[in-house]
Amino acid sequence: MTTERIWTAALAVIGDEILSGRTQDKNVSQIALWLNLQGIRLREVRIVPDVETEIVDCVNALRARYDYVFTTGGIGPTHDDITVDAIAKALGVGVVIHPEASAMLHAYYEKRGGLTDARLRMARVPDGAELIPNRLSGAPGIRHGNIFIMAGVPHITAGMLDALTGTLEGGKPLLSKTVGCWVAESEISEMLEAVEKAHEGCQIGSYPFFREGKVGSNFVIRAVDAATLDQCAEDLARALSEIGRTPVMGGI
Amino acid sequence: MTTERIWTAALAVIGDEILSGRTQDKNVSQIALWLNLQGIRLREVRIVPDVETEIVDCVNALRARYDYVFTTGGIGPTHDDITVDAIAKALGVGVVIHPEASAMLHAYYEKRGGLTDARLRMARVPDGAELIPNRLSGAPGIRHGNIFIMAGVPHITAGMLDALTGTLEGGKPLLSKTVGCWVAESEISEMLEAVEKAHEGCQIGSYPFFREGKVGSNFVIRAVDAATLDQCAEDLARALSEIGRTPVMGGI
Repeated sequence: MTTERIWTAALAVIGDEILSGRTQDKNVSQIALWLNLQGIRLREVRIVPDVETEIVDCVNALRARYDYVFTTGGIGPTHDDITVDAIAKALGVGVVIHPEASAMLHAYYEKRGGLTDARLRMARVPDGAELIPNRLSGAPGIRHGNIFIMAGVPHITAGMLDALTGTLEGGKPLLSKTVGCWVAESEISEMLEAVEKAHEGCQIGSYPFFREGKVGSNFVIRAVDAATLDQCAEDLARALSEIGRTPVMGGI
Repeated sequence: MTTERIWTAALAVIGDEILSGRTQDKNVSQIALWLNLQGIRLREVRIVPDVETEIVDCVNALRARYDYVFTTGGIGPTHDDITVDAIAKALGVGVVIHPEASAMLHAYYEKRGGLTDARLRMARVPDGAELIPNRLSGAPGIRHGNIFIMAGVPHITAGMLDALTGTLEGGKPLLSKTVGCWVAESEISEMLEAVEKAHEGCQIGSYPFFREGKVGSNFVIRAVDAATLDQCAEDLARALSEIGRTPVMGGI
């Protein structure tokens, strides 16, 4: 059995609005799902405030550990948008106006009141960066090596992810199958552990819920290999049937 | 002017289901809002997988930096619930059965099939811990010094937060006011910066949106002092009016 290389990523969510509780983050989930389709595992997320030293330390810690680092937030035109400066500092490079970004913003704002100094801020990038197209608003995302600087507004982030699809090297995606059952997870914890141990390369997560006045659980099995995954799901379903419970393939 | 002590907290969200994108986290926002009411600022969040060394390193990094550390997730009865063991390891203490937790679980499961070994796992705590009552299900949360080990299921977490309300020392809550306006933030970025600079102790965050075919922004002003906050919001509203824009107090 050869060991496949696992490609990893981390995400830094930059923004006081998330840490204050004002805004519900949506980017962790959408970036996680997208990364998995690229064959890359999201291994860690950090949410940090709009404070330069915090962003610098966070980005440096993450880029030392993971293959890819994504950031969201703080790339707009206002004084609280300091992500580009912080990442340039983390990388030890200067900040420059990217000519292509400047041209894109010129075109975008031509019929929207013109390109002011504030708007031109959105053409600033860490020296050496490429752009990530953003078809929804004028301001592009930024790629510098293995660092991807994305918007904070989720639907704009989605457009940038779309532009990156298929461009990042990854491995095999982690596949998953869910087996649901109207059973308390605490009743079958030994079964879950035994089934997991019997299938190398599989992990089983247990997610209980309380619905319609009844206790149930969804068991999410994850594996890289499809056949192993199927076998594990089938064996778990059989074990549930054997104790008189009805497994629901696909989850409840 | 005396400098008030600012009380800080960090949150470790523990769970593969968040990092895989399967589950949308709700705890960051609810814990952030609750902490602010206690006069404590959420300064950092880390989301880590169900891997012991990752949890140990995360908790140790956070408890060295912040007054309080909260964790969510991984305290159920199944094999993937390893938070208690990991935090005990981080603290350098053993894991013990808490007699009160054991009694609570006995009572809870008396009419629910009895207290199995798996269910008794939920009475395990890092040695020296107190319990955080959970009125929704049998298993309590755990407090060990400045570390608060909470459930992952958001409505159970909410019940535990409720039990902790008013018990943690904090300072003054950060107050906020929102001024909305149908204006692109990039048009008034200099105004925002000038108004923020003119009001010491105030921070202005700018949150653009695109709605009903129009571009607008909400400007969120944060300050500890209510009078300073009011003055800043009024001055921002006046500045918007002066350039012919209509400020909407409370936000759009």
